[in-house]
Amino acid sequence: MYPDVVEHIYLLVAVTLISVLQNAFFALKIGKAQNSHAAAFENLFCASRNCMDSYPTFLAVMWCAGLCLRQAPAAFAGIIYLVARQKYFVGYMGQSSQRTPGYLFGKRTLFFLVLMCTVGIFNYLLARYFGSDYKEYIETITNAASALLLIP
Amino acid sequence: MYPDVVEHIYLLVAVTLISVLQNAFFALKIGKAQNSHAAAFENLFCASRNCMDSYPTFLAVMWCAGLCLRQAPAAFAGIIYLVARQKYFVGYMGQSSQRTPGYLFGKRTLFFLVLMCTVGIFNYLLARYFGSDYKEYIETITNAASALLLIP
Amino acid sequence: MYPDVVEHIYLLVAVTLISVLQNAFFALKIGKAQNSHAAAFENLFCASRNCMDSYPTFLAVMWCAGLCLRQAPAAFAGIIYLVARQKYFVGYMGQSSQRTPGYLFGKRTLFFLVLMCTVGIFNYLLARYFGSDYKEYIETITNAASALLLIP
Repeated sequence: MYPDVVEHIYLLVAVTLISVLQNAFFALKIGKAQNSHAAAFENLFCASRNCMDSYPTFLAVMWCAGLCLRQAPAAFAGIIYLVARQKYFVGYMGQSSQRTPGYLFGKRTLFFLVLMCTVGIFNYLLARYFGSDYKEYIETITNAASALLLIP
Repeated sequence: MYPDVVEHIYLLVAVTLISVLQNAFFALKIGKAQNSHAAAFENLFCASRNCMDSYPTFLAVMWCAGLCLRQAPAAFAGIIYLVARQKYFVGYMGQSSQRTPGYLFGKRTLFFLVLMCTVGIFNYLLARYFGSDYKEYIETITNAASALLLIP
Repeated sequence: MYPDVVEHIYLLVAVTLISVLQNAFFALKIGKAQNSHAAAFENLFCASRNCMDSYPTFLAVMWCAGLCLRQAPAAFAGIIYLVARQKYFVGYMGQSSQRTPGYLFGKRTLFFLVLMCTVGIFNYLLARYFGSDYKEYIETITNAASALLLIP
């Protein structure tokens, strides 16, 4: 249907699929925990709530970054965010000592994606009004910067 | 603006619009129920919460499936999901005997959409690296398979 | 990567970015309020919940309207919605007399965006089956109508 569009979004679609499977995993865990005692369920439910609340934000930012600049670094950052989310949720299933403090996670990754969007829009506006296109430099820098996300 | 893009997404946009109207219907019902007694409101609020929690997941999967393969079966599955959601919510408004057990609904439809995405991406990768394009066969099979969703 | 696509969506991406920053602002405020006394936190948490619940709906409608008709009025309506949301949330942080009654806000803006989508799809279908394209008239009317949203 869309041979040239799929080419530019297939990595983003793949990461979206993984995130959907992760959502299903969370829902199953919550369903199982409903039969356990109240305090543990309350904690897990709260963690799942925080995960689901930031889910639309994450999807929107990842797709915008992928469409405006390049899909490969955006999808890579998406994977890293999903790993952080998994860690956060699993931490709530175990001992309280393993938990991530606070209810925010993956802040750095989201910040990187927001930066990618901003740079992509600025680059487009520069190219449109001043005729100078730094896209290749920016893409190289973005690829390099996305590797920095791996630093814990 | 986008004559050729609208052609490929207008069914998806239509289903998205219907889902938005349904969200508005849920919000109105919740607003009315706020004045009724506590137990009924608590139940309805919980049902609406489950509906809204899975909403981003549904939107993401439907759009990915529609973009990667074909919009017609994806939009059809979307409609079926919305009917399941309506049934789930209305069940909570009436007697408790009509309720869907659990807090998950439309699992089969979502699974079908996830399958469509996966097949679409695999087909793209096959066509890219091996030069074999099974898209027509897949689209025929998808159209036939989407009819199976009608079986209750 | 997508020179001609970015041209049609850069305003939508910009509004999405602003909405993401606003989400971050809400999350920070909630994080700070957690240490304050219970009643104020409960209120603020409830307001943030209402904001986040309608967020996927807002994103879906804005993008559909922008893709189907024109991005400029859709992005403008998006900005107005974000201002309404900011007012709603800030109202909950202050005295209860400043609060917006109910838990809905920006209804008029969302309705305008839904209308834009509907008109865009109908126009596409008319152009396809009857060969009459009223897009230019509709775009002029839409631009004028979006100014009406400024009326409080």
